[in-house]
Amino acid sequence: MGNVGQTDLHDLNEPIINHSEGQLFLSEAFKIIVEEVLCKGTDVNEKVCQWKEPEELAALLDLELRETGEPQHQLLQRIKDVAKYSIKTSHPRFFNQQFGGVDYHSLAGRFLSETLNTNLFTYEVAPVFILMESEVLRGLRLLVGWTHGDGLFCPGGSTSNMYAMNLARYQLFPEVKSQGLWGLPRLAIFTSPESHYSVKKGAAFLGIGTDNVILVKVDDGGRMIPEDLDEKIKQAKSQGAVPFLVSCTSGTTVQGAFDPLDHIADVCEKHKLWMHVDAAWGGSVLFSKQHRHLMKGVDRANSVAWNPHKMLVAGLQCSVLLLRDTTNLLKQCHSANATYLFQQDKFYDVNLDVGDKSVQCSRKVDCLKLWLMWKAVGSSGLAERVDKAFVNVRYLTEKMKKREGFQILREPEFVNLCFWYIPPMNCLDHTPVIKERMMKQGSMMVGYQPLGNKVNFFRVVVFSPLLSTKDLDFFLNEIERLGNDM
Amino acid sequence: MGNVGQTDLHDLNEPIINHSEGQLFLSEAFKIIVEEVLCKGTDVNEKVCQWKEPEELAALLDLELRETGEPQHQLLQRIKDVAKYSIKTSHPRFFNQQFGGVDYHSLAGRFLSETLNTNLFTYEVAPVFILMESEVLRGLRLLVGWTHGDGLFCPGGSTSNMYAMNLARYQLFPEVKSQGLWGLPRLAIFTSPESHYSVKKGAAFLGIGTDNVILVKVDDGGRMIPEDLDEKIKQAKSQGAVPFLVSCTSGTTVQGAFDPLDHIADVCEKHKLWMHVDAAWGGSVLFSKQHRHLMKGVDRANSVAWNPHKMLVAGLQCSVLLLRDTTNLLKQCHSANATYLFQQDKFYDVNLDVGDKSVQCSRKVDCLKLWLMWKAVGSSGLAERVDKAFVNVRYLTEKMKKREGFQILREPEFVNLCFWYIPPMNCLDHTPVIKERMMKQGSMMVGYQPLGNKVNFFRVVVFSPLLSTKDLDFFLNEIERLGNDM
Repeated sequence: MGNVGQTDLHDLNEPIINHSEGQLFLSEAFKIIVEEVLCKGTDVNEKVCQWKEPEELAALLDLELRETGEPQHQLLQRIKDVAKYSIKTSHPRFFNQQFGGVDYHSLAGRFLSETLNTNLFTYEVAPVFILMESEVLRGLRLLVGWTHGDGLFCPGGSTSNMYAMNLARYQLFPEVKSQGLWGLPRLAIFTSPESHYSVKKGAAFLGIGTDNVILVKVDDGGRMIPEDLDEKIKQAKSQGAVPFLVSCTSGTTVQGAFDPLDHIADVCEKHKLWMHVDAAWGGSVLFSKQHRHLMKGVDRANSVAWNPHKMLVAGLQCSVLLLRDTTNLLKQCHSANATYLFQQDKFYDVNLDVGDKSVQCSRKVDCLKLWLMWKAVGSSGLAERVDKAFVNVRYLTEKMKKREGFQILREPEFVNLCFWYIPPMNCLDHTPVIKERMMKQGSMMVGYQPLGNKVNFFRVVVFSPLLSTKDLDFFLNEIERLGNDM
Repeated sequence: MGNVGQTDLHDLNEPIINHSEGQLFLSEAFKIIVEEVLCKGTDVNEKVCQWKEPEELAALLDLELRETGEPQHQLLQRIKDVAKYSIKTSHPRFFNQQFGGVDYHSLAGRFLSETLNTNLFTYEVAPVFILMESEVLRGLRLLVGWTHGDGLFCPGGSTSNMYAMNLARYQLFPEVKSQGLWGLPRLAIFTSPESHYSVKKGAAFLGIGTDNVILVKVDDGGRMIPEDLDEKIKQAKSQGAVPFLVSCTSGTTVQGAFDPLDHIADVCEKHKLWMHVDAAWGGSVLFSKQHRHLMKGVDRANSVAWNPHKMLVAGLQCSVLLLRDTTNLLKQCHSANATYLFQQDKFYDVNLDVGDKSVQCSRKVDCLKLWLMWKAVGSSGLAERVDKAFVNVRYLTEKMKKREGFQILREPEFVNLCFWYIPPMNCLDHTPVIKERMMKQGSMMVGYQPLGNKVNFFRVVVFSPLLSTKDLDFFLNEIERLGNDM
């Protein structure tokens, strides 16, 4: 660790960092980022990924952290290398995940958030963002149908879902906060087998246990069956459990199914259960007059999780938990009243200090990117993106139906399209083989998975505002090309 | 929501976003960010904050989100306004929190992470960052003293602390994952009253309850007393609880105290308890040959939480959980084996897909900024920053002792310096009044709080590599100036 050399270089009474050198470096880095990630990285003549085996990539990147620093030109080369070997998630042919694409207004907001580098716990240290977060949450809540309520930006949908569980549990048994689960009856959560895995992960983390997540049957389209929910609730009660939360899904991960919220709300009201809607993926349909019917009844829920970093292309991480509650449940449930942050003798309204509503202490500013993007294109512009995604997936579906070898699982309800491609020279479970070829050639990226008794199929998600029909035609041709010599 | 006008403008077959327009906007935004945040925002002739009452600020910012979008020049003005009214956390006179300052290499890494916009769950979608995260964790673990182990970047220290609790609980009672806490005896956590509030928040969130967080006495310096820990553990056992975790602190939030890890490790070994070290604030001393003795014994811990976004100026959010475990406990405890992400029939080593180690699904890339900064200045450069912070706080302490009106709580062990300022015209609890004047004039920022039976005092944290002794002299003069006409 001998740092004698370096220490001797600096007078410890003076700043160690030089602003003009630093700003010069940042400007050079910015140019590289624009060129490598935003220009080349979105160019259809360039690859989506440069596949390298892990050992080879590790050697290329020279990741090791050493005792002494490196010169600026070498660091700039490192930025180039990181960009070169990273996946181009903004590339029009990145269909692999429920995030991707780029929005330049959001990106500018993200650069500004990073540079301002503050923390969303007090008005004192984040005056602009405390007010802004509140306004963005209000805007999103209005789309849900709530003129009042509460909410928080969270570091992802899994966290939002866990918050909902914790709030539902606390509302029913406030003593859980101090006493834990020991004095409580066994609690039960209800969700569909096609819901996101974070429901089970959250139940385990919160001490509820995955066995107490009861799976409700789905129909052919992957939508929760409300009658079975009612049945399962009764069954759980008869076995001595206390049902407290139903986690519905708007836009399931694989099939893009929307649970019938209105009917589920009836069941929740009947049994007095907290209704949570995991709309991490599907929530953005609320912007579209044409498609918001998919979430009819969402205003009857108690909480909604929604990730604008997915369909709205706001950039990772951008996830909100929205609440209908107006009784300050979030703060009561999570507060610790730390006197070093949340002093009550401040000279401004301490209700603005939202930090104690969160389980986190440091909380990154995730609202600015969404706010700036929303300001830039308006609600109408965001609605247009949603509508366009539906148009695109419809186009792709119709084309697939007309092509040999493509077989869709079912008509898409959302912008997930699940299909098999069966090459002319049919072999068993060719999906992973096509995927491997795709990655190694780097021409595009799309995910696959099995589901229930269905063998591996591709799931293409079509939502990026950067897409044109040319990209969709390419997608079909490329699947054929990759599969056809099997 | 009528978006007819806007939709008509675009052919839905074509991309909605124009890259060259977008890149032009981003370049303009970049210039504003550099000018307003990095130049003016670090200039000692400019204010640290532009205090506005919430209502006035809301009106100035025009936060409302509307149906239609805005022209580019107006959006650029909005970026200026956001910058103008935000706190300048990189300003040398921002002493308010345990984050602040700016490192340009880290910032370049953050811009790159934001632009690459990927997700740390699979090698497929984040090849560079999967390898990089692993290497950064290895580097940090080596400083702890572990040649092997595990770990993860988390969205903050509170999350890292909760992970440690969940792992400790799972190791002792693996059935908790499926069955929840009901079949288990009452569990107990031990920590000091000066530990971070996230220990209690975490216990509540995980279903353990705040009453089961048992507070161990501290000495005059705020350090946990190992003998009292031993006593409290025995007491808890005798009352039927099962102690399972001790959460020690390296660098307490208010006083900056370091719990005596080596002695606590003896007690943990004796009782076979999981030893967690919350080194979110203090962990960075491990870089310094001169000061790492403060954490002597940390290698005997089971887990360490450490936030490089604090003292190392890596930028929010940058927090790690480090583990001594080599049995893949993290994955066993948290995995859900989702087939849409973690297929086992992939063409590469699926052990690289670390996403199932996390309770999160989407997980932001937080390693690149630290990696690039570390590459830039080396371990020796980071050590120098730590050493400089100690030199600065020593300077400030000595000066304070010589000035009338300043009274320190005690000799600082770390870079937190707690003090009262008693103006010549003494009045009761003037700290909040000085603070209000400071904020409204915007000349600098420093936090205050009470502690135990001690009335409100200032806590200045001195760690930014941008500081010079001039800034420290200014600090003393400014406290006097703000207080002297009371």
